[in-house]
Order: sequence, then structure tokens, then C-alpha cells
Amino acid sequence: MCPQPDELTNGHETNGHANGTNGSNGSNGHSNGANGSRNGYTGIETNTNPRPHASNPYAPVGDFLSNVSRFKIIESTLREGEQFANAFFNTETKIKIAKALDDFGVDYIELTNPAASEQSRLDCEAICKLGLKAKILTHTRCTMSDARIAVETGVDGVDVVIGTSSYLREHSHGKDMTYIKNAAIEVIEFVKSKGLEIRFSSEDSFRSDLVDLLSIYSAVDKVGVGRVGVADTVGCASPRQVYDLVRTLRGVVSCDIETHFHNDTGCAIANAFCALEAGATHVDTSVIGIGERNGITPLGGLMARMIVADRDYVISKYKLHKLKEIEDMVAEAVEINVPFNNYITGFCAFTHKAGIHAKAILNNPSTYEIINPADFGMSRYVHFASRLTGWNAIKSRVEQLDLELTDEQIKICTAKIKAMADVRPIAIDDADSIIRTFHLNLHSQHEKPLLPNLSPEEQKKFEAKERELRGEKEERDLEKTADMQAKVSDALEEVPKSKKRELELDNGDAEQESPKAKKGSRSSRRTSGKEAA
Amino acid sequence: MCPQPDELTNGHETNGHANGTNGSNGSNGHSNGANGSRNGYTGIETNTNPRPHASNPYAPVGDFLSNVSRFKIIESTLREGEQFANAFFNTETKIKIAKALDDFGVDYIELTNPAASEQSRLDCEAICKLGLKAKILTHTRCTMSDARIAVETGVDGVDVVIGTSSYLREHSHGKDMTYIKNAAIEVIEFVKSKGLEIRFSSEDSFRSDLVDLLSIYSAVDKVGVGRVGVADTVGCASPRQVYDLVRTLRGVVSCDIETHFHNDTGCAIANAFCALEAGATHVDTSVIGIGERNGITPLGGLMARMIVADRDYVISKYKLHKLKEIEDMVAEAVEINVPFNNYITGFCAFTHKAGIHAKAILNNPSTYEIINPADFGMSRYVHFASRLTGWNAIKSRVEQLDLELTDEQIKICTAKIKAMADVRPIAIDDADSIIRTFHLNLHSQHEKPLLPNLSPEEQKKFEAKERELRGEKEERDLEKTADMQAKVSDALEEVPKSKKRELELDNGDAEQESPKAKKGSRSSRRTSGKEAA
Repeated sequence: MCPQPDELTNGHETNGHANGTNGSNGSNGHSNGANGSRNGYTGIETNTNPRPHASNPYAPVGDFLSNVSRFKIIESTLREGEQFANAFFNTETKIKIAKALDDFGVDYIELTNPAASEQSRLDCEAICKLGLKAKILTHTRCTMSDARIAVETGVDGVDVVIGTSSYLREHSHGKDMTYIKNAAIEVIEFVKSKGLEIRFSSEDSFRSDLVDLLSIYSAVDKVGVGRVGVADTVGCASPRQVYDLVRTLRGVVSCDIETHFHNDTGCAIANAFCALEAGATHVDTSVIGIGERNGITPLGGLMARMIVADRDYVISKYKLHKLKEIEDMVAEAVEINVPFNNYITGFCAFTHKAGIHAKAILNNPSTYEIINPADFGMSRYVHFASRLTGWNAIKSRVEQLDLELTDEQIKICTAKIKAMADVRPIAIDDADSIIRTFHLNLHSQHEKPLLPNLSPEEQKKFEAKERELRGEKEERDLEKTADMQAKVSDALEEVPKSKKRELELDNGDAEQESPKAKKGSRSSRRTSGKEAA
Repeated sequence: MCPQPDELTNGHETNGHANGTNGSNGSNGHSNGANGSRNGYTGIETNTNPRPHASNPYAPVGDFLSNVSRFKIIESTLREGEQFANAFFNTETKIKIAKALDDFGVDYIELTNPAASEQSRLDCEAICKLGLKAKILTHTRCTMSDARIAVETGVDGVDVVIGTSSYLREHSHGKDMTYIKNAAIEVIEFVKSKGLEIRFSSEDSFRSDLVDLLSIYSAVDKVGVGRVGVADTVGCASPRQVYDLVRTLRGVVSCDIETHFHNDTGCAIANAFCALEAGATHVDTSVIGIGERNGITPLGGLMARMIVADRDYVISKYKLHKLKEIEDMVAEAVEINVPFNNYITGFCAFTHKAGIHAKAILNNPSTYEIINPADFGMSRYVHFASRLTGWNAIKSRVEQLDLELTDEQIKICTAKIKAMADVRPIAIDDADSIIRTFHLNLHSQHEKPLLPNLSPEEQKKFEAKERELRGEKEERDLEKTADMQAKVSDALEEVPKSKKRELELDNGDAEQESPKAKKGSRSSRRTSGKEAA
């Protein structure tokens, strides 16, 4: 009854990933070194931790059930996605999306039921004729009439679904499961007789009776269904529930297990991950997650999750740098904006702001990034122009602008930028302007205003802030702020040179900072500590 | 070593929720009936399932560790949120947001480190003076200098944080943990001596060494820290990892456990939920999740997750109908659009489109909704105008428009709408226009075009579609489509009258549909089934 790993993955191409190598998230989720394209993304090797990868006992290693390192994607933008409120895909758009998904490397593309409308049927036929690498599926109800239409379209497989929850059954099919089983078996055998793949899924699985579920899954498995599907149709499932159900199911059927998660309660990505940990083989996705209500597991979000779990598998299989293009294409087609916080491609996904964060990122991105933006053809952005800015970020910017300033001067300039940021929001070019003017003023007799377009009131406010910073409250600012920033973040200053060279925003000479100054600031902290005790 | 439930919640106000009643997600997540405001949101009681609540053996019941039914929120929009790339909160905005969060009912409001800038300190003081019900916290580094500034601002508590991962330690604090422990204990005792709450958190906890983590948490627990914090600073943690770590920690410390999850890999909400299941007491949130990179657990998303787990607790504690207002306020302040797929308040959160879905929702919303939009002052929207539209949705719309059409006529009209939706995207008012014109044409001699603004080409295309639908391909459309729609969804037609009256979009006479027609369609399916077998 407990299937062996090989049984669990019938229909899988071997991709050289031995079972048991998955589940590396927990340390930094990346295997260590060797791969030259992974600049800065290994954990930092240290004497006490020569293999940062293995440092966390909570990283699930060697779980034979897990398919985290060999999952497959059933991309449903052209089925679930078509149920999104704003979706209206014409044939041309559907073909464009299908080609892009195929190029990206998804394993399956699922299309709307050809019985839904005549156009749906024609589009299905058209996409089947494209000759894509991805297998084409269509999603139908568990009826012979739908199945008959589906098998004529040229698809590689049919995904049938039927409601199994008690209220659907009782009001629709009578009190026993025999009817559902017979209908399912009939459809399965018909589709198989046409030489096509067949999946049988329950609907609303997490509100269905467990015994009924296992009973029907077991029955369809016995007649040779290719995959069974578990669907959280209303988005109510939580990760540990998903793990438990899929793990149980894994012991009951020997076919593949597909999973489909809605995101109403924010668990669609996490649930997909837990399902794979428990032995599911396939995950349904859509681009930007579009679907009924607020949608399902997003393709990009799943990539973000899985690259942290097994980067080698993900980058070997999917053209990640195409992600943004596909998302933009679909967003345009359904007339939405890509959310600001979208996984990987959202405008702030790799933006760093707080002083400590920005400093650390400059030294080693893996300190505050678990995903390398370059894997997706994206780049990071360190935010300079805020009152949370640290002088190290400004120092890096000064070097980018090719200006010569001492650390002391940079600290003063940073204080001015922070004072200005307290007066009004400043953009990155404002920060540049302040830095340049500050530099100019050092070598000029006539002091220019730091920003050309300051109103007299703003100038007055700024001067007051500066006086505050420089003058009476000296204890709490400028040198001290700068020192504290240095204190906390100089932790990261000794990062090996080799690492630094790899960084996009290099501030190579950070190490030349006076060790004395560091010592000084540290001991002053200890002193003030003693005063308090 | 295994703390009893009462020990685990020191500092909790009793709210009348006995331990062990939590974790009801899994069935439909709602306790059954009784509460009149929960129209349509109980599971459907049936003979075989009189208590739908208890039907799923995977619903975690009576787990004594779980705090799912008595969690607290530490709202960090004014701290983590201020680290969001676009955030620039002036004093006025901060005060507005703090007041709104307080009104909503969050337990704590966390503010930016007053040592970060002079303005941050002044803003902190100003918010402390507002006399809010929520406790005010500030977030500082684990240093006496920061702590001294913090305790002078009038806050109720101080949240200190220090990096504990091996690379931070080795390059910063030396190889032993003694230094960190001493620094932490010094700060903790100082803050406690001022009569304030104190939290100690590690940074990047899921990439820290477990033994070091437990060791430092145990040490600070012994000197009486109020809460320890677990932070997934880079967003790498997965739900089962979180559960395991928090569960272990729960056995090590007797204080409260706060959790902070970034959303880089899409698990911030799921991780927070699993942490609560494992015994964590507090969850950090921000409005719309804003924070470093793509942010942290969003307040609204957490509400969506938790209302499914324990609706009574959530609606008794938080003013959910204020959620949208707060989100709009913050979105405006940081100049972002609320994402289309935002939990609960996104434009598509309660929009239903596919024929089967829309029909079922009209009969009983809990069939395809796990959250009642009315709980949040929102309403649902059933999408009529698409080629996936079912005739039941159109029927409901016809009734809303107060037009008289027979079921047969409605089916024909639906076919016309679907044909039109194949020609071009149609808005809901287009659908209304088609319905009205169709109704008018029935009683008029001159047939008007269904849409006034159709181009000649569109009209030609539409007529071709219609001919297709009506004529040669009769097997595959119109009656058949309509019948199939009826077949699949009449499952839900026998919903008790009492339930129906509660629905927003009532289509009360659905039951009067001819039982013969239903029988007919069912048996025809059986017949075609036999042909195939």
C-alpha cells in the first residue's frame, strides 16, 4: 500500500535529480558554491559554519515522499485564468499566451472546456495544432458529452472534474457514490480508449468527506487514471491540512497527484509547496494567479517558492527571464496592473531601503535576499533617498557618481540627505543633486543651495533640521547616527573581496575604514551599557 | 518543560474563548447556524451530514498548542511599512494611520526606531500622546543607546532585534554568544526597570543555528523578557519549517512568541497561520503587506485566513468593515494601487464568472465562497457577460431587471449573449441592453439590433455565430449547452427555501423548473454513456 518513489512518478522524464535531494530551503535554500552564475547567493562560509547549507536542522532532508525537486506545472491561464472577471482572450491572444508559456517551459497547458462555447472549441483545436512542446489539456465536466467533444479537439489529455462534497452529492447524485464512480469510470475508459491522458479530480476536496474522497480516488486509480486531482476550490485549506490529505492520498493511489489551490485566504503558494512535500506531482498555476475570485497559485510566485527550494531544478527547466514578459502580456490582455508587490517582478521585489538592509545588500545580497534577481533577468535597487538611508548606501552612490569624498564628508552629506528627507519626499535624482552640490560646495567659495527648487519655507525647515542635527542634540545624531549605522552593519564588512567583486553595486573600499573608529564606537556602546546597568 | 496552556498566554486578556475550540477550518470553517448574521455561511446540513462542521477528519481540533483562536496583532505599517520603497509618512499621515489601526482593533502599533532620525523620534512621541487603546511599541537595535532614546518617547514597549545568524555573529560579535546574551540581558533589564514591555527577537531566524537560537531565547526568557520574536527576514521559510521551529521554541520559553514573516516566496500568511497553530501568540502585519522588498504578512490577508479559522473571535475583536478604508488610506499615502487580487478588498475578490460557479453562488454563496463579503462590508458580484455565462445567472439578472421571460426564452437570450461575448468583450450593461432588447423584440414587430453600437462587421460575425449556434451544430450548443448547465448545477436547486431568502441575489422560483426536463437531460446523459461503453 505504500508506493515506492518510482511508482509515484509514472510519466515523469528522469531529469537526473535523485529523490531525496529536495527540501533544501531552510538554510539559504541554495546548494553551496561551484556554480559560477550564483554570485553572492551561497550562504557565507565561516569557520564555525563551513557548510551553511546544512546548518538548520529544520530543513527537511531526504524525505522520500517529497517531489519538491521534480514537480510539474499545469498552466491554467487559458482555463482558470479565463474565469477571471476581466479575462476575454480572443484566439490570437490565446495563441500568443500558449506559445509564451510553452517557451517558458511549462509541462502542460490547460484550456477551457470546448463545450463551453463554439469559440472555445475552435480555439482549443487551433492551439492543439500549434505543435507545442507542452502537452495540451482541456478541462471538462465528468460527462460523456463533454468528453466526446474534448477528445475530438486534438488535445493530449482531458482533465475531468466532479463535485464530491456531501451537499453536492446528496442533492444531485443520490446518497451513494456508485453513480459518481460509474460516471467517472465510463469517462476515464472512453478517454483512455482514444489514447489520451486522463485526470480525475474532485471539486472542493477539502470540504468533502475523506472516506468518500479516498474511495473514489482509489476506484479511478484501479481503472488506470493518469492523475487524480485535489482541488481547494474555495481557498479554505491550510498548509498542514494539505500536507496531511496529500500524504494520505499518496498511500492510496499509485498514479500522479495534481493539486489546485485558490488563494482566498493567502495560502495558494504555501499549499502547493506542502502538497509537493507530501508527494503531489503536479501544481496548477496561472500567470499572476488570475482565476475565479482572487485566483490561484501564481506561476511567478511558485517559481519564487521553488527556486528557494531547488534552484538547480528550477533554472534548468524554466526560462525564468521570460517571466516578466509573459506577465506583462497577460496583464495587458486582461487589463490589470501587475501588483506593486508581485513576486519577483513587482516594482519593489528587490528594492531595499532601511540603512542596515541597504548596507548589507551592498556587501552581500544574500544577507537580505533569498532570490537572486539576475536569475529572472531582474536587478536590485537600493534606495538612497530616505531618512532611513545609511551612509554606506550614499558612499556607494558617491562612487557610482565618480566623486571624491572622504568617509567623514560622506557622513556629513548623508546627514544632510536625511535632514532633507525629513522635510519632504526626495527622489533618487534629488539625492544625486544633493551629493553633487555638496561636493561642489566643498571646493567653492559660494555655497549653493543643496536642491535648486526648494521653497523658502522648505529651506528654513531644512536649516532648522540641520541645526538640530549638528547642534544641541549632538548626542542623538550625525556622528552618533553614522557611528551606530557603522557599528551594526560593519558585521558585514569583512566579506571576502571575491564576493564583493560580484556585486552589482560595489563599494570595495569599505574595508579600508579605520578599524580604530569601529573599536571606538563599539566600546562607547559598552560604556553606555555599563552606565545603565 | 512542556508549558500548560495558561502559562503560554501570560499577558492575554481572557476573551471567553476556551482553548481547544480553534482550528475549525477544514469543513467550511464556520461554526454551525445560530448566529443570524451568518446567512448562507454555514455548511449545508444534510441527512448524511447533519454537522458539516465536523465532517473533515483533517480539521485540527483541540490542539492545545494552537493560538489560532486567540492571536494578537502587532501592526507594523508605521515601522516595517515605512521601509517600503515608496513610503514617506509625514507626522499627520502617521497619526491618521495610527488612529485608524487603533480603531480597527489591532493590539499593538509598532513605530520606526526613534534613533533613526529626529523626525522619527518626534513622531513617536506624538503618537504615544494620542492615548490610543492599542499599545505603542518601537523597534530598536539591541543597544543601550537605542534603548535609552526609546524609553524616553513614552512608548508602552520596546521591540529589540539582533542578528543571530552565524555569519553575522562571526564577523560582528566574535565566536561565542556570550556577548549577544549580555547585550540583550542588559537592554532587557534596563527597559523592564522603566516599567515597559520588552521583546527580544533574532533576525533571519530561519538561517540561524537552532542551538544558538534556543540558547539565546532561553536566556532572555529566564531574565523575564515579555516576548521573544521569530523573524523570517528574507522570506525563505516554509510552513512546516515554521511549525516545527515554533513548536520547539514553545517548549523552551514560557513567554509570548511573536512572529514576523516576509513574503518573498509567497508564504507570509500561511507561515503566520502555522506559527499560531504551533503556539505563537503574536503576528506582525502591515496594511497591504507593505515593507522591505515585497513586504510582510498583510493585515487584510491575515484577516481572510483567520476568519476562516475562527470567525467568532475575528469579528468580535476587529472592525472588519473598516479594512477597506484603512487600505485605501495607506495605498494613497504610499502612492500605490491596491492590487486587483488583494485579499477581500481587491476588485475581483468576490467576483464569480463561470456558469457553474455563478449558478451555485446564486443558490448558496458558501458553495464557492469561504468568506462572507458582508463581514467586511463588501458585496459579491456575479459576472453575467461572458461566454462562460450560464442561463441561471441571466435568469437571475432578468428577475432583477423585473422583466418577464420564460425559461425557454431566457435560454435563447443566454445563447445570444454568449454568441455576442464570442464576438467582443461585453460589459454588464451590454448584457443588460441585450436582455432588454431581446425582451422588447419579443413584443414588437420591428426587430431592433441587440446592441445599438455594433459595427456592421461585428453584426455579421454575431449573426454567423448565432447561425452556428442555432443551426448546423445543434448537437453541440444552445439547448444542449443549456441542458448541461442545468444538469450540473441543478444539484443545488433543492436548497431549502429559508436559505434562499437570505441570499443577496435571490432566484426563488428556480425550483419550479420542470422536473421532467431534468430527468430527461439526466437520462440522455446515461444513454450517451452507454453508447460509449
